[in-house]
Formats: sequence, C-alpha cells, structure tokens
Amino acid sequence: MICYAPVSALATAQEIAAGRLTAQAALDHCAQRVENHEQHVQAFQQALISWDPQEGPLSGIAVGIKDVFDTYDMPTTYGSAIYETHQPAIDSTLATMLRKCGATIAGKTVTTEFAWFTPGKTRNPHNLEHTPGGSSSGSAAGVAAGFFPAAIGTQTGGSIIRPAAFCGVSGYKPSFRLFPTLGLKHFSWSLDTIGFFAAKAEDNAFIASTCSKRDLHVSNSDGSAPKIGILESPIDDLMSAEMAKAIEQLRSQAQTKGASVIEVQSPPAVEEAREAHAIIQGYEAVLALAHESRTTPDLFSKELAEYLTESGEITAPQYDDARRTANHARKASRQLFEDCDVLLLPSAPSSAPATLASTGDSVFNRLWTLLGMPCVNVLAGFDQKGLPLGVQIIAPFGQDKKALQAAHWLENIISTS
Amino acid sequence: MICYAPVSALATAQEIAAGRLTAQAALDHCAQRVENHEQHVQAFQQALISWDPQEGPLSGIAVGIKDVFDTYDMPTTYGSAIYETHQPAIDSTLATMLRKCGATIAGKTVTTEFAWFTPGKTRNPHNLEHTPGGSSSGSAAGVAAGFFPAAIGTQTGGSIIRPAAFCGVSGYKPSFRLFPTLGLKHFSWSLDTIGFFAAKAEDNAFIASTCSKRDLHVSNSDGSAPKIGILESPIDDLMSAEMAKAIEQLRSQAQTKGASVIEVQSPPAVEEAREAHAIIQGYEAVLALAHESRTTPDLFSKELAEYLTESGEITAPQYDDARRTANHARKASRQLFEDCDVLLLPSAPSSAPATLASTGDSVFNRLWTLLGMPCVNVLAGFDQKGLPLGVQIIAPFGQDKKALQAAHWLENIISTS
Repeated sequence: MICYAPVSALATAQEIAAGRLTAQAALDHCAQRVENHEQHVQAFQQALISWDPQEGPLSGIAVGIKDVFDTYDMPTTYGSAIYETHQPAIDSTLATMLRKCGATIAGKTVTTEFAWFTPGKTRNPHNLEHTPGGSSSGSAAGVAAGFFPAAIGTQTGGSIIRPAAFCGVSGYKPSFRLFPTLGLKHFSWSLDTIGFFAAKAEDNAFIASTCSKRDLHVSNSDGSAPKIGILESPIDDLMSAEMAKAIEQLRSQAQTKGASVIEVQSPPAVEEAREAHAIIQGYEAVLALAHESRTTPDLFSKELAEYLTESGEITAPQYDDARRTANHARKASRQLFEDCDVLLLPSAPSSAPATLASTGDSVFNRLWTLLGMPCVNVLAGFDQKGLPLGVQIIAPFGQDKKALQAAHWLENIISTS
Repeated sequence: MICYAPVSALATAQEIAAGRLTAQAALDHCAQRVENHEQHVQAFQQALISWDPQEGPLSGIAVGIKDVFDTYDMPTTYGSAIYETHQPAIDSTLATMLRKCGATIAGKTVTTEFAWFTPGKTRNPHNLEHTPGGSSSGSAAGVAAGFFPAAIGTQTGGSIIRPAAFCGVSGYKPSFRLFPTLGLKHFSWSLDTIGFFAAKAEDNAFIASTCSKRDLHVSNSDGSAPKIGILESPIDDLMSAEMAKAIEQLRSQAQTKGASVIEVQSPPAVEEAREAHAIIQGYEAVLALAHESRTTPDLFSKELAEYLTESGEITAPQYDDARRTANHARKASRQLFEDCDVLLLPSAPSSAPATLASTGDSVFNRLWTLLGMPCVNVLAGFDQKGLPLGVQIIAPFGQDKKALQAAHWLENIISTS
C-alpha cells in the first residue's frame, strides 16, 4: 500500500486567502487522510481528536509536532518509556509561535527514543516495510501521507534531512539557532537544530517565514540558476549506485537549465571535524540525560543505555578539543563556497532501507549539522522500487534563503525536465 | 545587623577529607546559620528541612540553587507568580551534576522575576536595608551569610558578578556554554550563563572543577603576578568616587606585589556591541516567555509586562543584525588582551544601593556577558558605610582558569597588603 499524497501548505493558505477554500475544509481533508491511513503509517504518538481552525496566516494549516517538543495541552513522551504519561506544564516556544500564527496543532508525531536511534512505530508511506527514517519519523511520514501540510522536527545527526529524503518531502534544517529550542528535550544542545517538513521548498519557506517573521520566501521570478558545487568527499563510496546516478542526472538537468556546476573538494579543516560530531554528541547526551540515568536507568532501551555508558568515557578536555575543531571547521567551511552558491550532495546513502529496525544512516548529514549550515532536502526522483531518492542543497551559515531558493529552483527543473 | 560570615567550600572539603570534620557537622554549621539569620536575610525561596550528607567529593558541602533551575524534588517558581506551585518533572543538569558529586542541595534561592529585574525578598547580609543585587539575589546573599559554602546562579546582564560584589563574595561567571543550561528557565538563551558563588576564587574553582571534571583549580605555588589591563571605557564616569579610589588602590597594591599594570582601551567593534545586548535580550525574552504571555499575561509584574510589550517591537532583522554585531565584537575582543593577561574593571558602579526596590545597575556587566568571557568578582575592600566594593577580573573566552587564578592572586595580595 502506498499512502503518499503530500498537501501544499502554501497552496492551501493561498486558496483559503482567496476564499476558495475554508480553513475547516482544509483541516477536514487532512483529518480524512489520517482516518484512512494512520493505521498503516502510524505517524502519530498522539493525535488530537478534533482539529479546530484558528485565526492567523496559518489558519487551516494542520501542523505535526515531533514528540520531543513540549506541549501544554498534550502529553509529551520524548519517545521514551520514562515519559509515557508525562504532561509538560508549558508549551515549547516553537509550538506557541505556530499557535500564534493560527496553525492547528494536529498532534504529536512519533520520534525515536530521545531523538536518538531506537525506532518508533512509524512506517514509510511509500512502502510500509521500509523505514521512514528518523529521528523525526512521524513528522516526515505524516507530511508525506498528507496528514498535515507541515510538521516540525529536530536534527542532531541527520534527523530532518534523512527522513525527508526517505519519505519524499521537503525537509529544511535551518542555520543553527535560527529557531529557538526552548521547550525541546535536548539530546546534544550544541547540535540539536529545529527544522521543518512540508511538501516542497516553497512550503517550508512559507511556514518558516511566517512563524519567524523573517523573509525566507522563495520566488519564481528570481528564476536565475544557482552556481552549484557538487561536493566530492571521502565518504562518496558509501553512496548507492542509484544515488550516484541520480546526482549525475541532476547535474546534467541543472546544466541544461543554465546552472553552472562545478566539483568542490572540502578543505582538510572541514574533513577533520567529522569525528568531532560523535564526541560532542556523546559527551552532551550523558549530561542531557543525567537525571534519567540517575533515577530511572532501567527504562532506557538497551542500545541507548550502552551508548550512554560508552559516552561516559569521553572527558571534558576531549569535548573541549572537539568544540575547537568544530569552530575551526566552521571558519574553514567558507572556502567551500568560493566558486559556488550552494553545495549539492546526497541526503542519505540510498533510498529508505527495507527495515523497520533501523532508521538508516546519518553519515551524509552529521558534518553539516555540526557546522550549523542550512540544508534542504530535494526529491530528486524515485529508484527502481519506487522509493524516493533525496539530495540536499547546503548554503553557507545564515544564508537560509539561498538554500531554500536553490532547492526551489531544483524542484522546478526536476518537475519540468 | 550584619550577617556576613562566608564559609570556605575548599577548606570545608579539605577538613572533611583529613578527618577533622564530619560532613554532618559541616552541614549542621550552615543549618545553624540559616536558623539564626534567614529571618533577616531571606535568601531562600524554599529551604530543605533536613540536610543529609551524601557521598562524593562535595560531601558536606551545602549548595544553594537559584530558583530558575528545575529540581525534581522541590518546587521551582522562577520568581514568578505564574509558577507559585510549579513542580518540575526532572532536575536541571547542573543540579544533577552537583548531586552526583555528593553536594547536599540546601534549597532553592530567591531570584528576581524570571531572573530579570523585579526584586525578590532577599536583603544584603552587610546591611539589611540595602539590596543584595540580582537576579541571583538569594545565592549571593546566602553564601555571604554562611548559609551554604556555595551556590549556583545565572547571569544574563550582570546577575552573578553584581550580587557577588554587593554581598562581598566571589562570583564566577564562566565562559558562555561551558556549563550546560538544560533545565534552566531561559530569559535570553544567547546570554543566559550559568555561574557560581563561593567565599573566594579558590572555592569557586574547586566547586566548578569538581562538578565539571575540568581543571579550573587555582594554585598558590603559581604565584606569578598577572599582567593586568585596567580597562578605560566610555562608561567610567558612572563609577562612584569610592569605586574609582578602590581601583586606584588596587593598581598600586598589584604593582607593589610585582604585577605589571597597563591601561587598555576597548576597540570600536567591541564598544559597538554594547547596544546589541539590549536587542538580543529583548527579542529572546519575548520568545522565551511566549507561552506565559499567551496564557497568563496578567501574572507578570507590571514592569516585566511593559518590557515584553516594548521588546515585542524588535524585529527579526534587528535581532539578526545584533547577533552579527556581537560576533564581530567577540573577534575584536582579542585585541584587548594583546598586552595583558586579564582585564580589571568595576563589578558595579558602586557598593550596594540603599534600596530593596531595585537590584542595582548591570552597566559594567552586560558587555562581558554578551562577549561570553569568564568574569570573577573580587572583594576589593569596603566603603565608608562598611559595604563591600567589588571589582571583576575578565579573561579571554575559554580561559576561565586564567581568570580564576588572577582573581585568586588579587585576593591574596589584598588580604596581605
């Protein structure tokens, strides 16, 4: 069974603004999708029974909230047995920002345990035997299934870009700290980055612009082709043959449409930072879960308990060194963009693996999370099994609009070529 | 009535380790101070009835926790009527770190409303009609009164260094993000910095080293005199005559003891950042308190409600500009240390003002919080009213040990000169 039918948030808002659609009807459409397909996809940790329209620029837009964001009116489990019945006192800042814009909170979406690797129950809408990716599993799968036009998630390793790629939707991981993390259950506070899922780049740009009151909108009139750098990196041999082929095809499509495409090598100072990610994440995870480790250690999954035990060996000086390495890499990363506007590379090694016991590999994501750069997943096509192949556009730190605009340009040439 | 009698955390731990003092006796000594003087000082938002010794390197050390840090076994009010009966589900990371080291949590200490300016009930142990400073009012006053040898607090403007100065104790504001803020109620996440109060610099160094497992210890054998830069800045005319005199005296004392002392001017790019602090704090406070503003706005103090309304006018581009200005200033701040190891400047314009309606002025602190540099308050002497005069030692970002060591050196020459 294929449950793939994403709904455009931007088009929905435009139809409502033009009076051709009511907010209630827009919500009802999504609620019907949930009724028909949630039993298969299982995107929700907790769905609200009735979705009421609110006032504001996001009126009629249902938004899924990854269950690591606190909500004052819904339990929040963080994907952990420890918090099975936990009811936070207040909203996370991002949940309140969305409410104030008139979004309807659709419910809490399934996350892996503490947004780490132990999978939840969610399945891939393209093929229910395949992982939707993680850790923002329910947010990505729910957007793909048309349960809500938009969702929020977090990325510490590859938890936005990878599930977006596996589910065939647009995932936008903003520059680090562009969106506030207050009320988020942290796993690694130097890495945890808030982001968005929606049908296309223009939809993510609309949602992110509206709730942050920043101009991140993409434009069709600015159709100028970006200068694209195809990153060549030491991990390229981890790419599947189909992914390598998709990148090659995209390169010639982009060139046909007027983009200049070059190869880019990453500087040694950037490559050296790859290992820093694991050290920073491990050290911080031990502290982030210090209370749970002290009071309810038996309620961690076996895998997470082992990870925390191992990570407990990381010393403060090792952590401080890794942070310095990351800072040097952030500065050196400017060299990547000397001759191009954005980078293009795989969002994941392949399409979604045929398993529900793993959420896949974040090897193509971790470095960019560490460097804090904006990343946008673009659906490049489908593999022979009909599963989406995702590539990511990466822009320099703080240039989120450029990443979204290039992703939008790419989506347009893919659909028309 | 004067209730000033700080207890050395380091000496207490050493006496216990040597078997000359039991942990229980050390705790009892402090508990007796609370019983005798808390009615006057009012440092506690909530004191634990019985203080039990725990196992670990901080065994026998009672620690006050500012009531903006979540504690799973004590209510946490954030100094706000909204949270009068709030019981968090879990501990803040720093509270757990202290518990794991065997510290005894003495209780929650009074904070201003959300660690902003509206004062709590705490009084200055040197003169009960004077403010103890804020926002970490109870932590500073409680250490000064000998209620606990150590306490934790936070600084967003001047909320550690100023109350430490007013109460005549050592205050240590670490480099930004050296200590995790998880479980802290944020007011401005780009500024909120966790810090420590104790009798002297060596005590803060001991507590901070122990709970972070970093080497921040100060040493008496490394008695080499630091190169001190006396910062000359455009706000120096805000100093009281007594403060200016104290700085002059300290300069000649330091020179007599072998320190080289020079004047340092701050570069224009650093000075430009002074205004960025207000923009960043205001913009983030609106988001940090978005849920409370949406659901219980009538429970803010009038002053905070007005501040949030005014700050609501700050736009995202203004905020993004201010963050860029701050980043430039962080880079330019390296010039401050070209010819010196540390900077010396007032911790506050004067000694503690004779009021309980205000916690004083953070004008000498805000820039350094924004730049993320380690600051340590040093008791330079007393004014004619017998109130402490505090100066601060500031080191480059990440060089916390250097700041603590210079403060320790200064404390030694002050007490012996």
